[in-house]
Amino acid sequence: MVTPSKLDGLVVVLVRSRNPLNIGAAARALINFGFRRLRVVNPYKLAFRDARSAVGAADLLAEAEEFPTVAEAIADCGLVVGTTAVHRRVLHRPLRRLDEDGGSLIREQISSGRVALLFGSEKVGLSTADFTHCHWLLHIPTQPEQFSMNLGQAVAVCLYEIARSVGHESPPIVIRRATAGELELITSILLEELRVSGYVKPGTEVVMEEKARRLVRGMDLESGEATVLLGMLRQIAWKLGIK
Amino acid sequence: MVTPSKLDGLVVVLVRSRNPLNIGAAARALINFGFRRLRVVNPYKLAFRDARSAVGAADLLAEAEEFPTVAEAIADCGLVVGTTAVHRRVLHRPLRRLDEDGGSLIREQISSGRVALLFGSEKVGLSTADFTHCHWLLHIPTQPEQFSMNLGQAVAVCLYEIARSVGHESPPIVIRRATAGELELITSILLEELRVSGYVKPGTEVVMEEKARRLVRGMDLESGEATVLLGMLRQIAWKLGIK
Repeated sequence: MVTPSKLDGLVVVLVRSRNPLNIGAAARALINFGFRRLRVVNPYKLAFRDARSAVGAADLLAEAEEFPTVAEAIADCGLVVGTTAVHRRVLHRPLRRLDEDGGSLIREQISSGRVALLFGSEKVGLSTADFTHCHWLLHIPTQPEQFSMNLGQAVAVCLYEIARSVGHESPPIVIRRATAGELELITSILLEELRVSGYVKPGTEVVMEEKARRLVRGMDLESGEATVLLGMLRQIAWKLGIK
Repeated sequence: MVTPSKLDGLVVVLVRSRNPLNIGAAARALINFGFRRLRVVNPYKLAFRDARSAVGAADLLAEAEEFPTVAEAIADCGLVVGTTAVHRRVLHRPLRRLDEDGGSLIREQISSGRVALLFGSEKVGLSTADFTHCHWLLHIPTQPEQFSMNLGQAVAVCLYEIARSVGHESPPIVIRRATAGELELITSILLEELRVSGYVKPGTEVVMEEKARRLVRGMDLESGEATVLLGMLRQIAWKLGIK
């Protein structure tokens, strides 16, 4: 099991959940496996309110934080992982299996920094826009023809794997990763430069924004590298006459 | 994942379940992880009937077998394992953790014979009488002070562990990485932009070149990402009036 000091390292983010039973079940799974931080993005209002009465999870739900966007919900996280039932590469994000390196990578990271684990809505999962915020995607290995899991069960399975005993873990290498907030800042300055330079053609704003966000997440920057890149981009922005 | 020949090796037995949502969720977990055999012992009648309409699990529930006693439900099984949230020895039955030897022992057994995995009612779990039918007990490692899991989630976690990959079955993800030549081109254009923008101060050329090269290598770019970044930097260079 993870040690108490790791408890705060994992942030479970439920994106656009609609079913109060599922939100309650997710909260209960956090408690069962020793995690504390639950965040919800743009939930169906009634669902979130009803979920707050879930048996055994009222305290955790009362402390759950609500955000209007994924970007805000993950801003303080150094690693952002999206869950997907699809067992192939999606949107050029790397895909890892929970029972292979996916679970263990998250387990390692939560001892040195904060990790966001995103779950999409019951019906459609995470959107392509949500995926652009993710460093990589996590796949629970289900049967190809019956891949869609119940949300509460998917959360429970992931948290079980992340909390599982590994016995003889080698001490993790501590790397402070750039936070999602820092990456978003880099993305926004880069985008502004691309607009000014004419790289972003009219009508392509959304596509280009996703492209830039994917690229910056794909860079896999450590905190120090993010600071350097930010300084470089700011100087170039100044030269381009931005702000 | 378990191979198709093993699918019939595991029999999930729900004992005195009262909540149709939980029975339905259990059935769905079987389907997700590739199992087929669900048996119910003395369920609350209405619960079992309502569960039969569970989304995505109707076929499996229609084939679920109903028994009046645990003894009859497990009669054809060579190994009988009872689940318990309690993390100490109960009734002199050996207790194994799901994430240690418990899960792997079941995984081994289902390839050679039929294994029954018993889950008790939502409120009180399995009874002392139920435990006497078990060869050993299986414990999902939850937090000691919050050990009681939702039935559907407990079933999902157990089946995930039993079905988990033990070898290396999924093909490795092939990623074509950017070549050193591509990275050097990116570095040189970035450096030129930094010079024109005034980021590179007189006398710091060598240090800045190293800094930029380290940063670009640290980005760990795939080939496609390098192409995108190169296109962006070239456009910005054009705007900055470089060549």
